[in-house]
Amino acid sequence: MAATHSQGDKTPRTERGRKTLRKLLDAAATEFAEKGFHEASISGITRSAGVALGTFYTYFDSKDAVFRALVSDMSAGVGKAAREALDPSMGALEIERVALRAFLEFAAEHKEIYRIIDEAEFVDPDSYRAHYETIGSRIEERLKLGGESGEFAPGLGTPEAWAVMGMNVFLGLRYVIWGREGDPDFEEIARRANMLLTRGIAS
Amino acid sequence: MAATHSQGDKTPRTERGRKTLRKLLDAAATEFAEKGFHEASISGITRSAGVALGTFYTYFDSKDAVFRALVSDMSAGVGKAAREALDPSMGALEIERVALRAFLEFAAEHKEIYRIIDEAEFVDPDSYRAHYETIGSRIEERLKLGGESGEFAPGLGTPEAWAVMGMNVFLGLRYVIWGREGDPDFEEIARRANMLLTRGIAS
Repeated sequence: MAATHSQGDKTPRTERGRKTLRKLLDAAATEFAEKGFHEASISGITRSAGVALGTFYTYFDSKDAVFRALVSDMSAGVGKAAREALDPSMGALEIERVALRAFLEFAAEHKEIYRIIDEAEFVDPDSYRAHYETIGSRIEERLKLGGESGEFAPGLGTPEAWAVMGMNVFLGLRYVIWGREGDPDFEEIARRANMLLTRGIAS
Repeated sequence: MAATHSQGDKTPRTERGRKTLRKLLDAAATEFAEKGFHEASISGITRSAGVALGTFYTYFDSKDAVFRALVSDMSAGVGKAAREALDPSMGALEIERVALRAFLEFAAEHKEIYRIIDEAEFVDPDSYRAHYETIGSRIEERLKLGGESGEFAPGLGTPEAWAVMGMNVFLGLRYVIWGREGDPDFEEIARRANMLLTRGIAS
């Protein structure tokens, strides 16, 4: 789990430890999203996680450390949501459609992700950049595999991967975070974005 | 000029007034980008603009007001950069390519735009949303015109406009803000993004 990598020797070794870490990260997501980084407090996180204040320090050294772990956990969560929605029988274009739909659903379940990632730009610029570089690399890898299988055009790379990532992030911003009555559903949004990838927007 | 709309009766009426307003907005861009909203000060803005502190209040009521005007001015600046790069002989696809290239160049000249717009999410959420809704509507309008002229597929709308906006914003993030030695130039980035719009990424 990405969230634990940066914790060094604080990685939990037991199932119970992993559950406590999960509770702390979920509570941190709520605390940071509701109060913003500067107003958020470690005691607010432990209270909402239902664990003792001292327990926090078994897992993290500081508020900065839990924020950093949370951003990394969210990058991992986006990846996990996509992977779980995919299956080996899918073609490369279908993978992009299903991955976008899974991302929209993940964001709808974790609406705080936008606020937290966006605040990382100010609080922890390295985590902010790592978040997008991680996701961008994952998409680039899929585009390359699609090129090798012959389903995608050859030579797709970083620009196309960042274009796809930007599409997905902005469709989530518009249809998840700023969604309105009467909007198309996530399936339809993913279908239309996929049409753009399949044939472009020319007539 | 969008920057002055929200100022009501503080809109400058003379050429000299417009120049002073421009100086204040440019100085505000630097001050907010360097210090962030909370650390930025009105006196820092007037000092860097080379105008008296009292002059500030001829144009703005508060630090919030100049920040809001700046976000609106940046939305207008993005639009102006695109319009100036376009000419009536261009086809709909060419317009998208040239508009993206103009945006990348604008962002390279005004690198502070990302930080300021992104901070607006926290400092002034209405301005943040208005910024993207303004740009999204502008792109949607172009996609509709392209549909009417027959160059674009019929029925393009908000999802495609936000997809195009997301592509453009993320290509700017990667190639302007986080640009690296050896990256393709803006012309090449705009060409590749345009290829995606022209024919998609399928083989």
